[in-house]
Amino acid sequence: MKEVARAWFEGLQDRIVADLETLEREADPALYDTGPAGRFVKSPWKRGENEGGGTMALLHGRLFEKAGVHVSTVHGEFSPEFRKQIPGADQDPRFWASGISLIIHPRNPNVPAVHMNTRHVVTTKAWFGGGADLTPVLMRRRTQDDPDTVAFHAAMKSACEGHAIADYERFKAWCDEYFYLPHRKEPRGIGGIFFDYLDAGEAALALVKSVGEAFRKVYPAIVRINMASPWTAEDREEQLIRRGRYVEFNLLYDRGTIFGLKTGGNVESILSSMPPEVKWP
Amino acid sequence: MKEVARAWFEGLQDRIVADLETLEREADPALYDTGPAGRFVKSPWKRGENEGGGTMALLHGRLFEKAGVHVSTVHGEFSPEFRKQIPGADQDPRFWASGISLIIHPRNPNVPAVHMNTRHVVTTKAWFGGGADLTPVLMRRRTQDDPDTVAFHAAMKSACEGHAIADYERFKAWCDEYFYLPHRKEPRGIGGIFFDYLDAGEAALALVKSVGEAFRKVYPAIVRINMASPWTAEDREEQLIRRGRYVEFNLLYDRGTIFGLKTGGNVESILSSMPPEVKWP
Repeated sequence: MKEVARAWFEGLQDRIVADLETLEREADPALYDTGPAGRFVKSPWKRGENEGGGTMALLHGRLFEKAGVHVSTVHGEFSPEFRKQIPGADQDPRFWASGISLIIHPRNPNVPAVHMNTRHVVTTKAWFGGGADLTPVLMRRRTQDDPDTVAFHAAMKSACEGHAIADYERFKAWCDEYFYLPHRKEPRGIGGIFFDYLDAGEAALALVKSVGEAFRKVYPAIVRINMASPWTAEDREEQLIRRGRYVEFNLLYDRGTIFGLKTGGNVESILSSMPPEVKWP
Repeated sequence: MKEVARAWFEGLQDRIVADLETLEREADPALYDTGPAGRFVKSPWKRGENEGGGTMALLHGRLFEKAGVHVSTVHGEFSPEFRKQIPGADQDPRFWASGISLIIHPRNPNVPAVHMNTRHVVTTKAWFGGGADLTPVLMRRRTQDDPDTVAFHAAMKSACEGHAIADYERFKAWCDEYFYLPHRKEPRGIGGIFFDYLDAGEAALALVKSVGEAFRKVYPAIVRINMASPWTAEDREEQLIRRGRYVEFNLLYDRGTIFGLKTGGNVESILSSMPPEVKWP
């Protein structure tokens, strides 16, 4: 299962990289005048001497101002402070983890930012987790009846359908609960799905595959619908401020970010989720 | 002591606001061409129904791109999760706290950013804490032999001199230890002083006063030495990236920020420390 999951995540990275590079090429140079279509740059990295590693794929493009699509497969031992927090790690601190994680910050404020992550973790237990959520950056587009919102929720619901292991309503509620900024009393985006601790097995891997493929269908479609819309300086300003909330969420609350930084993860890879340009006016 | 401390913090806010507005007026309009000299805007706020409050003073200027000089005097009860962490609060969760907190983000990358905070906290115990530290944003100025660094350390050492309660070398080491980003393996700035849990009394208040007045002397002097130096687009880019590390520190590690956000502090006031414009390229 470990090798099958790892191969899936790595293949998915390649396909998403190709999807996004295609969109980069489709962007109208009259609207996206910062330079030619961008290409992903892949950077392999290693965790310690012999504890695996990963491949960062980073794009600094014209349509996608900054996009990171990263895979990693690492193993090691949890530090004492984490052993009680991780299922199956309190007696034996060894772990193995493989996953894909992506965050996309488009240049055009009409195009929502997005995040997707799926992972397979093995301690003395083994499970899958992950999810995907959409963050429109303009207040007028951050509604539950916006067409992008409707399309994204429909895609995630459809990804769950046919999987007995998936409880879509619970995963959707979990996402809303997770991606919430209590100090701002506001959600990060318009939601999506979030799940964790799904017992590892063919059924969980099949769900994770469906989520990845649903993402590949719905996000490029949302990009194509919005990418030709011009934006104003006010829209850009609103986007830069909204990105500040994204930073606040990731550094104050995101388990993956904090967990990664405190367990000796790859800092460049983890913090590549930070938006390229941000304002707190 | 409570009222004396409160009056000191509020008077210091007024004097620092005047100092910074004077510098704003002195700035050369040829170099600082974003508009006229800025003025502080004061916004009073209340904590709950009857738990005190504070006054935010925020400047969006030409020399000082964003500066916040805030005072607050609040009281209430610590939530259960904080009671064990705060001296004297485990049996009786009531607290009273008054202080001044400032962060200055200059527009010119040659002018270092700065932070200063002093406070008086009363639970079943009572103490003073605080400190000041300097953050040059250009790598070539982030050295221990830079004239700004030397001047800042000298001012803080001088603020401690003559106070038997002050152990300058310990306060300086505490500052270096506190303002450190473990995930980046780098300090936030060039240091300064940091102290906490000094038993409340005339001696501690006198030290806090000296720190405030030392700040008033040294920081405007550092600004005047550097404010006429022009900067390049590369300097500005380096400043914006360095500000990202400042954000990372404040949201991942700063006790005041995290404590404030999790104890129902004033979000606008706490997060006004965020730099106005930031890049994570």
